[in-house]
Amino acid sequence: MSIASPDSFAKDHLRSFVDRIESEEAEIRDRNQIKSEIYKEAKAMGFDVKALRKVIGDRRQDPDKRAELEAIVDLYKQALGMPS
Amino acid sequence: MSIASPDSFAKDHLRSFVDRIESEEAEIRDRNQIKSEIYKEAKAMGFDVKALRKVIGDRRQDPDKRAELEAIVDLYKQALGMPS
Amino acid sequence: MSIASPDSFAKDHLRSFVDRIESEEAEIRDRNQIKSEIYKEAKAMGFDVKALRKVIGDRRQDPDKRAELEAIVDLYKQALGMPS
Amino acid sequence: MSIASPDSFAKDHLRSFVDRIESEEAEIRDRNQIKSEIYKEAKAMGFDVKALRKVIGDRRQDPDKRAELEAIVDLYKQALGMPS
Repeated sequence: MSIASPDSFAKDHLRSFVDRIESEEAEIRDRNQIKSEIYKEAKAMGFDVKALRKVIGDRRQDPDKRAELEAIVDLYKQALGMPS
Repeated sequence: MSIASPDSFAKDHLRSFVDRIESEEAEIRDRNQIKSEIYKEAKAMGFDVKALRKVIGDRRQDPDKRAELEAIVDLYKQALGMPS
Repeated sequence: MSIASPDSFAKDHLRSFVDRIESEEAEIRDRNQIKSEIYKEAKAMGFDVKALRKVIGDRRQDPDKRAELEAIVDLYKQALGMPS
Repeated sequence: MSIASPDSFAKDHLRSFVDRIESEEAEIRDRNQIKSEIYKEAKAMGFDVKALRKVIGDRRQDPDKRAELEAIVDLYKQALGMPS
């Protein structure tokens, strides 16, 4: 099957791949929409969205690795005379 | 309810927002994983993944707007002596 | 020289790396500012900024590879019954 | 001067905009190259590049705003029973 001049077999496959990818992308768009609505809801209740995003980002990281990185960051800030 | 010193009511809400957002993010990660597997499948069958991504990207755009943009791009390329 | 408890030698080096990186970043910010002003100038003269960005993006690519990709994209669009 | 069918006046302007933008982009590429070499140099001397990037990122932010955000983040982490 040469993709250079697709026969009907290849056309069907191409169509199927496009449909499957587009259906996943539609689902991802929906989920991102839901996510941004949840953040709006949190904001309306007085939560700080930037802080909420930071907490959720930190939760994605391995706690030990994150603690180790923050210790070195604090050390460098101290060496530079910055508030930690 | 002051978010500065969250009482149990706020803690429950905070926990619920975090759980809901993380569950959407887990779903999005899964869908992105499925998407990349579909592209791998297409590649294994001889399709050009870069071209497939471009086609799917173009399909997201309004056909008339895309055609209008491409006409101006071709005009500019001609004016610059570039192959269109 | 242990970075875990930086002595003055390490502090000086840390300071120098930070200063050097920040100076490159300042230069990059300035250049990006100039770039966006040029685009504003072009827009004010009636040029289509989106088309201009596309032309400049295409110029970054190897012409032969770009032509090859576009040929496959057109082939796939044909197979899908899309306007090219 | 209609950009739809550029006369020589428009062609010259188009050429000049493209040249000016590409020269800024070349400068930005060079600066980014220098930046990554500085990070490599720091790494070779034993500095933690991820921590260095974090420190430089934090230095870009307004210290008071950053401290305020981190206070809220710590509060939320406490409410969620996370290590701060």
